Amino acid sequence: MPSQRAVFFVSDGTGITAETLGQTLLTQFDGVAFQTTTLPFINSPDRARQTVDYINHMAEQSGARPLIFSTTVNDEIRSILRGAQGMFLDLFDTFVHSIEQELVLKSTHAQGRAHGRNNQQRYNSRIDAMNYAMEHDDGQSTRDLSRADLILVAPSRCGKTPTTLYLALQHGIFACNVPLTVDDLEQQRMPSVLDGYDGKLFGLTSDPERLSQVRTERRPGSKYASLAQCAYEVRQAEQLYARKGVPFVNSANMSIEEIATVAMQEKGLRKATF
Amino acid sequence: MPSQRAVFFVSDGTGITAETLGQTLLTQFDGVAFQTTTLPFINSPDRARQTVDYINHMAEQSGARPLIFSTTVNDEIRSILRGAQGMFLDLFDTFVHSIEQELVLKSTHAQGRAHGRNNQQRYNSRIDAMNYAMEHDDGQSTRDLSRADLILVAPSRCGKTPTTLYLALQHGIFACNVPLTVDDLEQQRMPSVLDGYDGKLFGLTSDPERLSQVRTERRPGSKYASLAQCAYEVRQAEQLYARKGVPFVNSANMSIEEIATVAMQEKGLRKATF
Repeated sequence: MPSQRAVFFVSDGTGITAETLGQTLLTQFDGVAFQTTTLPFINSPDRARQTVDYINHMAEQSGARPLIFSTTVNDEIRSILRGAQGMFLDLFDTFVHSIEQELVLKSTHAQGRAHGRNNQQRYNSRIDAMNYAMEHDDGQSTRDLSRADLILVAPSRCGKTPTTLYLALQHGIFACNVPLTVDDLEQQRMPSVLDGYDGKLFGLTSDPERLSQVRTERRPGSKYASLAQCAYEVRQAEQLYARKGVPFVNSANMSIEEIATVAMQEKGLRKATF
Repeated sequence: MPSQRAVFFVSDGTGITAETLGQTLLTQFDGVAFQTTTLPFINSPDRARQTVDYINHMAEQSGARPLIFSTTVNDEIRSILRGAQGMFLDLFDTFVHSIEQELVLKSTHAQGRAHGRNNQQRYNSRIDAMNYAMEHDDGQSTRDLSRADLILVAPSRCGKTPTTLYLALQHGIFACNVPLTVDDLEQQRMPSVLDGYDGKLFGLTSDPERLSQVRTERRPGSKYASLAQCAYEVRQAEQLYARKGVPFVNSANMSIEEIATVAMQEKGLRKATF
């Protein structure tokens, strides 16, 4: 049995940064079962004291010293949290002071900024992008394709929809997706609604076995889910992408984050000023 | 004009952790325009050397020392990157060694783990949750409501859909959403499909002005978008939530991350073991 360790992500905001930072670090350690708890909105001394009591209580029960990842920015709150019986890993103290020196600028110590609504313009663009993705999912609407930053094309069930929504929600990218039908694949043509948008296209493909498995969950025993059909569609899609010069990736072993990253990189969509 | 500073997020994987960490820290500094560039998949010495050349080239053009947030785990790659002309902020070196000491365990130095597909079970649950959210958006389907971890209810355009999708994609939470119609609000009742699911409900409301603004974008000049109608619906919704004991938040000034965080906390949905 692996050893166990309690982990707390403590934040004055949503806790997303503390989770992301902490979980990334924990993926570097095999053989330990981490029990993680996120404690968001710890934005007053009272809540900080309750947090310390809670962590100490859990630490006593587990017998091992917990890891505490903190992104709280308020000095008083942080000094209360440091009293907890655990290993305190502090994003703010670790990095902010050296950045202050580099920029010759004091930090604001403003709470809850990282995932709040402080950048209204960027926030609205994410919501608009999500609405766009929902309206244009799976070729439902072909209006406004000119507004798309990126158009994903692929045979059914290669990961178009989750990747599109992720691009919208996480990055505010206007993405839509259009399926390649069996007729498109057979005749080696892109759907005609995509005429004139060659530069926006990004293709997905998969492994026949993986695709067959995913399609079987949806329609067991169908020709659609058969290994032969999946192998045919994958082969035809890859040939079509090559003929048309459409960049593509095989999504079989990739996460949506990885697929999105490759697509954004290919289209130069990940620069920002704020 | 604010001063400018180039910022690079360098990663052997998707770059999401480096971006999250770096952007969180940068929100603490007002009065500087940060130009950010994410450089993902820097997973070989060759790519690391190209990255150094690129950063140095950009640094020369801008005249100010760039900030470089790195999450790369490979020692050789990291030592090449440290040669870039910038301030090197290193997640790995900063935290991993002290965690190794705490756990009495060597880290794996495995690349690309944070947002890859290494935890297949968790990954599948996110995709299943997203499919569930899509199928159940806006009360489209009321099958399988028993499978939901959380059911969002609200008048039209209070933020149900983006919050639901975010909960699915980011946290693998099975969430669906059901609109409160004008009839429901008038008669102070929950939609009958929700009978028996009281414990899963979480309500959203908004400010009349904000709601009217959002609805006006969709249907300008309509009764639906009028301030009077929005004020009525908000008042009735809040009264209904109170009568039924449904926890709720006013989403008018909250990000989807904040709404999701409050909802998860209310329902105890954010503990994990991995």
